[in-house]
Amino acid sequence: MTVKIFDTPDVQDFLKTVSGFDQAGGSERAKQILHRLLSDVYRLIDDFDVTPEEFWGAISQLNALGKETQFGLLAPGLGFDHYLDMRLDAEDEALGLTGGTPRTIEGPLYVAGAPEAEGFARMDDGSDTEAEVMWLTGQVRDVNGNPVPGAKVEIWHADTKGNYSFFDPTQSEYHLRRTIHADADGRYSARSIIPSGYGCPPDSPTQQVLDLLGRHGQRPAHIHFFISAPGHKHLTTQINLAGDPYTYDDFAFATREELVIDANRIEDAAEAELRGLEGPFTEVVFDVELARTDAAELQSRHKRPRALEDA
Amino acid sequence: MTVKIFDTPDVQDFLKTVSGFDQAGGSERAKQILHRLLSDVYRLIDDFDVTPEEFWGAISQLNALGKETQFGLLAPGLGFDHYLDMRLDAEDEALGLTGGTPRTIEGPLYVAGAPEAEGFARMDDGSDTEAEVMWLTGQVRDVNGNPVPGAKVEIWHADTKGNYSFFDPTQSEYHLRRTIHADADGRYSARSIIPSGYGCPPDSPTQQVLDLLGRHGQRPAHIHFFISAPGHKHLTTQINLAGDPYTYDDFAFATREELVIDANRIEDAAEAELRGLEGPFTEVVFDVELARTDAAELQSRHKRPRALEDA
Repeated sequence: MTVKIFDTPDVQDFLKTVSGFDQAGGSERAKQILHRLLSDVYRLIDDFDVTPEEFWGAISQLNALGKETQFGLLAPGLGFDHYLDMRLDAEDEALGLTGGTPRTIEGPLYVAGAPEAEGFARMDDGSDTEAEVMWLTGQVRDVNGNPVPGAKVEIWHADTKGNYSFFDPTQSEYHLRRTIHADADGRYSARSIIPSGYGCPPDSPTQQVLDLLGRHGQRPAHIHFFISAPGHKHLTTQINLAGDPYTYDDFAFATREELVIDANRIEDAAEAELRGLEGPFTEVVFDVELARTDAAELQSRHKRPRALEDA
Repeated sequence: MTVKIFDTPDVQDFLKTVSGFDQAGGSERAKQILHRLLSDVYRLIDDFDVTPEEFWGAISQLNALGKETQFGLLAPGLGFDHYLDMRLDAEDEALGLTGGTPRTIEGPLYVAGAPEAEGFARMDDGSDTEAEVMWLTGQVRDVNGNPVPGAKVEIWHADTKGNYSFFDPTQSEYHLRRTIHADADGRYSARSIIPSGYGCPPDSPTQQVLDLLGRHGQRPAHIHFFISAPGHKHLTTQINLAGDPYTYDDFAFATREELVIDANRIEDAAEAELRGLEGPFTEVVFDVELARTDAAELQSRHKRPRALEDA
């Protein structure tokens, strides 16, 4: 049977007590937000007649997610990262701050402190001799087309198995992670390997939640970027390599049309030699436009717990 | 600045996609519940203009809670366990199933498989020679006052430091945990030690959430019970010992007036000898009334992940 008690004075008073409304200490904002969240969940329990078994199953799933540090993996799967981007986009639009390469989600796998290089970096350690060589290059410009000399281009991506160094202890330190300072023309280049897409591990607590929704946990092959320069808006973005089966079906909802990039196989020996490469390679060109801003808080990435980054 | 995007078609469509509404597999109920939950949280983010910093701080806190398996500790602190009890009470009332000793929350610290005994058990291992001896006894009756012979009385409680065996590896196996089958008169007795209340560890992720609400994380001294017998409603309850500073200020909201029990110090040597005790002791009398039911599903406790219990 279904009882409804949410709207009773007992429950409404109880929610105020739980939220610390009668306590002097704590954070007023936290109290208001938690009161709202708890009210929403209490009402949901009432409306859906959630059973104790279902509730305790959910608690158990939350423990499992935290035990494997997967809330940052589930969050994009539940669309939160993209939703925050939609809000930032709407704010930019309201402030007339549009233009430039679009942002997209950061994901949970950045690691601070990667080696820095001027203009060019080799990102892979050469250990994967089967991997396709990737020549990743582009120019950082402002929205008027002027180069941004010295722009800071931070790049990180997965290996051919879809794994990231640091989180995958079998890879060398900072493998496939570099910070490149663009040259006087705003150009950056990197030699690396073509990454693979990846999927949430099949038995992971994150995939278990996606399974309930009938959803896969796959991401297309992609490359992460932080791009910044004084006087310009910090950009957090990713590119997807065109042609991946999941390019337009990313479980993390990071794909944006302007960020789907063709990867071009180049077999011309002269072109390879020009880049100091031994044989055929795949070129990925990603030019970036940064919007201008004088607001200091827009020139750096938002705070978030990140591996090896000081709070 | 504040933008509001929740009600836009883009966000509403996105929520349906995230919730797997266009996917054939998964659970229809899970999709509906998660769609509701996500809608509530997305709207909250919009209404409170939650920043990425705040969002990622929350994700980090969720990971920390799971890492220490504390969602089952935070849940009663946020009133969920008591709210589920309020719903069960309302259901009982609607079904005319009132009467008997009131239920209250189970908490996350039950461990299955405790030693069983007939009529009487000693629960402590004698290692705490400073502890006050507790003589815990009572009669299990039906709502008409008739004894319930052989009723199964499962008891678990903390030691004098507020810790529970199994979760506290310094205690012996099943210390302060016993299953007693009541005698022909429905009576049970246990020799144990008076437990202490306890508090959430000050630096624990649970206490960090309570701190935001200006709330303490203390529980009064209490003793947990599962009581069951064929033909009777299974009862999950606790008693609080009167006089504890937190008896009426339990962070887990488990206190119910009918479950506050006086603990009586008895110094009479003859009374001690009657019970096979060497000196003064404290007697705690908890008589229990079980409601009758023929419904099999009401005769056992609801499913929930519990330590050492088969799913």
